[in-house]
Order: sequence, then structure tokens, then C-alpha cells
Amino acid sequence: MDVAAYSTSGANAPLERTTITLRDLGPKDVLADIAYAGICHSDIHQAREEWFGGIFPMVPGHEIAGHVAAVGSDVTSFAVGDRVGVGVFVESCNECENCAKGLQNYCLKGFTPTYNGRDKAGNPTYGGYAAAIVVDENYVLRIPENLPLDVAAPLLCAGITTYSPLREWGAGPGVRVGIMGLGGLGHMGVKIAHAMGADVTLISHSPNKEDDGRRLGADHFLLSSDKAAMKAAEGTLDLIINTVSASIDMDAALSLLKTDGTLVSVGLPDEPLKVSTFTLIAQRRRLAGSNIGGLAQTQEMLDFCAEHGFGSDVEVVPADQVNEAWDRVVASDVRYRFVIDTASLKS
Amino acid sequence: MDVAAYSTSGANAPLERTTITLRDLGPKDVLADIAYAGICHSDIHQAREEWFGGIFPMVPGHEIAGHVAAVGSDVTSFAVGDRVGVGVFVESCNECENCAKGLQNYCLKGFTPTYNGRDKAGNPTYGGYAAAIVVDENYVLRIPENLPLDVAAPLLCAGITTYSPLREWGAGPGVRVGIMGLGGLGHMGVKIAHAMGADVTLISHSPNKEDDGRRLGADHFLLSSDKAAMKAAEGTLDLIINTVSASIDMDAALSLLKTDGTLVSVGLPDEPLKVSTFTLIAQRRRLAGSNIGGLAQTQEMLDFCAEHGFGSDVEVVPADQVNEAWDRVVASDVRYRFVIDTASLKS
Repeated sequence: MDVAAYSTSGANAPLERTTITLRDLGPKDVLADIAYAGICHSDIHQAREEWFGGIFPMVPGHEIAGHVAAVGSDVTSFAVGDRVGVGVFVESCNECENCAKGLQNYCLKGFTPTYNGRDKAGNPTYGGYAAAIVVDENYVLRIPENLPLDVAAPLLCAGITTYSPLREWGAGPGVRVGIMGLGGLGHMGVKIAHAMGADVTLISHSPNKEDDGRRLGADHFLLSSDKAAMKAAEGTLDLIINTVSASIDMDAALSLLKTDGTLVSVGLPDEPLKVSTFTLIAQRRRLAGSNIGGLAQTQEMLDFCAEHGFGSDVEVVPADQVNEAWDRVVASDVRYRFVIDTASLKS
Repeated sequence: MDVAAYSTSGANAPLERTTITLRDLGPKDVLADIAYAGICHSDIHQAREEWFGGIFPMVPGHEIAGHVAAVGSDVTSFAVGDRVGVGVFVESCNECENCAKGLQNYCLKGFTPTYNGRDKAGNPTYGGYAAAIVVDENYVLRIPENLPLDVAAPLLCAGITTYSPLREWGAGPGVRVGIMGLGGLGHMGVKIAHAMGADVTLISHSPNKEDDGRRLGADHFLLSSDKAAMKAAEGTLDLIINTVSASIDMDAALSLLKTDGTLVSVGLPDEPLKVSTFTLIAQRRRLAGSNIGGLAQTQEMLDFCAEHGFGSDVEVVPADQVNEAWDRVVASDVRYRFVIDTASLKS
């Protein structure tokens, strides 16, 4: 089946309108008409080969929301018309101990990414900047009725990437959580941590993020460039989710943690983190990383956001403005996530 | 009370025999005759101001074993003749939430170090390279009868520094523990992790450490310079205790961890650790630091070692050879801890 899409032919090429061929619907496959696809900064990193080599042509997009258009003969979980989402991966081995625990995101054989990967048959995977996608039903999420699809799409990456460590490290009432950075990930972190009942501090280098941070649910604002304020806040937080992809002063950030506190990095800076052992040892502090979430937890996150009545803060753009949107993402000029109206591809 | 000691007058000076004045015995104080004092590499770092400024003259030594020689009027826990130990700190605030939890080692007001610190009265503290020491009874540990004092002394720092993270992160049967480095700390880590029932891998850059590692309790040996072996061992360990004070390839070390595994640094390299976020994120790995242990846990460790019938592997030296011993510590030429026979000070 041929569908319209936006793809890039190489690291230095722009996105261009093209046609891609989806695989024939297998017995366990779902065909989803894509309504919206979020633009994640990692789309740009991958398309421009800033992290590692890419498979071209590349159709980015792993924050996908739409409706089921057709199902394979053995599909049991979904029916035509269902509201569905697809996130960062579309296959995993299903045999390793992590898959058995529902941690497909840490599949020991490596999951198949939604784009810029190869499926079990060896064919390249194409992502959400397209009119439709074919995915094994086990990797399809259900989007609750009261969650509009445009604000739901970014939850499939930005939402679960922040929800998972907040859940894993016990964010909730009585827990003091810091969210570093107020971008696509950070703004979801603030919303989710607040909804979990935590006491939330937004940590940002931009004083002009304070108002938005408080509107989104932050109880406190900490300006990371204010050394006196950072010093005064040392040892006050139980958990920090670091969503910043640039290099930051890790020792200053870690010092904000109480004894036994953890800073979880979910942003991916190119440069290695530099950490003084003294900062860790002084209060048995911990630094960790977390990568999206498993399927069951992703569904739990979607249900949680629906229950609390929020999705992402989005700016919807037509597909033919995707290159401009990318430029604005690189310039951090979006509050807080671009979502492509992929229905516009059909015109 | 004046006693013989070895002290240094400054960062570039050798240790010299001198006399120091101990404080008068307060009602809660214990006077301990020191039988043995371990030489910890941190003695050298501090005396040479390699980490931070020092208070001179400095009498190093925080691995102290001896006998009670006198007690203050209100001392209830100890009597003359008792076998006792003193570790890295001799006071803490006793008011903060960490002290309340028995984590005096993370006292939020900062503990008073056994040497190179100032006590509550503002006087400099003097450590174990001396004939005697006066310490508040609450900071004195009891050394079990079946543990010889020479091999017990290093437990007060090297023992608890490795015991505490092994206990905190659940080392035991079925847990695969890596110990990086086979020096003063590492050799205790191997012994303790083995005694806890863990499956122990010694990770060292020295192939000639393998035999000793196995003798001390390691089940496996991993040569860190063998890239193929390191690659093959990726994702196999639950917990790593990094005792190495030099800069190491942290990404290679962290990659040895399974999903959710933790690497705990207890060595203190001068340089910051460099860690790729990708390595952490790939399997939700954690990097932590740990600093000695609280008083109750230190006593637990002493009892544990006594129960299992081991102390440190030591080379006992007379006090007048302490400068030579320091040179050999810097050259890593000791298996695995020098202990000063402080009784030799009395002659």
C-alpha cells in the first residue's frame, strides 16, 4: 500500500514530500491512519546523523496518534475506528528477560525503532510523518476517548520518557521533584509530576520560563544561573529529572539532591556528563538514565494523563511546514511540542 | 595528656616523630591506647593537600584499633581493657535527620573527621598515628574478641567503605557483584561480597591480581584491558563497587551492568568521571557514590567480619617506617594494607 509521507534523503537534505510503500497487512497487524505526529528533537538528531548513522530515505516520527483503518485476520485487541497510538518502537524480541518483564524498551536484543531501523524481515521502518503506518497490534497503544489526538501524540515519547522515571523513582505526595529544562520533555515532566502529587520545582536557565512552569504545575522555580539560589537549594530534592540535552553543570545539579536522591537523565547531550565523585559520595547521591518506557507502562501513562485531563501543549502545523518547524525546534522556539497535522498529507 | 605521634608540618614535609597533647578526658570520653593504625591512601591525599587544604601539624590515621585505657565519669558503654576501634569520624551533630537515621557519615552539618578537622570546641583533631586518642564513647566501636587488632584496624575505613554499599545495594546470594580494583578497599570488597554469598567478579587492569583475587574469594576474574573480555561481559553484573581512584573508562565499566544495575564509586579520583548518557539510558543504569558508613553499620560490619573470621590482609610496619610505607602505598606496593604498630611509638 502506497501512502504520502515526508522523508529525507540524507543528513544534509531537507524533508520532502514523497510516497512510501507500507508492508502488506499481516494477520497480527494493524493499519492506522495517522492523524497527528509529534516532532521530537531526536527526529532531527537522527535525520541529521548527529548521534549515529541513518537509514535513508528516512521518514521520522515516533509520536503517532490516529485511528485504526484495517486489521489483520488474527488481530484481537483492536477494531476499525479505534483511537490508537504508536511510540518509539514497533517490535522487540519478546524472549529476553526484559521483554518478559514488560521492559520492551530495554529489550536485550534491541527493539526495532519506529523509524530508522529494520524490522524482523529486514525492511526499513518508516515513522509518523506519513498518512498511515502498519504495526503489530502488540505494539499499538489505546488512546482514551477524552484525550484529543493532537495533544495525545507527544505523550508517546515525551510523555512516557518523563512518566517512567517519575514512576520508577516514586514521585508522589511528599516527594520533592525537580524537573530540569522546560521543553518538550520538561513540560510533560512538570505536568505529570504535579499530577502525581509531588512537590515540583522547575529548574531552568531561562527566567522567562517561570510563568509557564507555574501554569503547568510547578510549585517552585529555580534559576540555574543564579548561583546563590542554587547554593541555597542544595540538598532539598529527592528526585531530579534532567531533560536538558545540552551539557550542564552536573555537580551543581546533583548537589540539589538530598541524601540518597537520584538525578535521572533523559536528555541526550553529545558530550559525556562530567561528574565529580565527591558530589556523589558526599550524600550517597545517584545518577541514572532512563529510556522511554515499556508497553504496559506507556498505556498506564496514557490512561493517567486522560484521567487527569491533560496532554501535551502543542502547536499544530501542516505537513508542508515541517522543515520550518524543525528549524524552530532547533532554536527552542516552540511551546512545547510541534505536532504535524498528517491529515494535511492527504490533500 | 601528652603522647607520642607522627605528624607532618605541611603538604611537602615528611612525617616526623613528635608529641601531641590530647584533650582532658570529658565525662563521656574514652581514652584509647592505640595498638595499630592502618595507612589509608586518603591519609596521603590529605597530608599532601591533594584534595583540599589541610590543618597542620597533621597526625593522620582513621583506621584505629586499640584498648580502652581510661573512661570518663559518665561513660556507660566501655570499660578499661575493652578492645575498641575508631574510624573516620569522631563527632557529628546528632540533630539532623541523617544522624537520627544512624547515617552520621552523611551528617548534614558535616561530621568531625578523626584528623584534619576541628572538634566542637574548635581544637584540631589528631588521628591514629599516635600512641593514644580521646574520643566520645558514642563514636567508639567494639572490636570482637576473635578479630586480631592488626587486621581489624583497616576495617574501620576500608572495611566499612566497601561493606556499606554492598549492604545498601543488596549484595547476597544470586547477586552478581563486580569489585573494580584490588587494593586496600578492593581486597576488602572481594572478601565481604564473597562472605555475603554474592557471585563475585574481580575486575582489574593487572593480570597478576587474578590469583590473589581468587584466593580472597572472587569467583571470576575480568581483565579490564582485555576489550574482548569486557565486551563479552557486558550486561552481566547487578552491582559494581568501583574502588579505583584513578580515572577509568566509566562507559566500559557501566556497560558491564545489567538493566537497573548500579555502579557505586568509593574511590576518589581527582578528575571528574566522564559518563555517556547513552550508556546510562540504554539499560536504566545507575552510578552512585558511597562514603564509609554510619556507626551502627560499622559495628555490624565488624561483627560480620568477626563472624566470618577475617580481617584485612596487612603488612605491619613500625612507626619509624611510616614515610617508606607511604611511598609504597603511592606505588601500589602493598598487599593490601599497611598497619602501623603504634606500640612501637612507646619505645
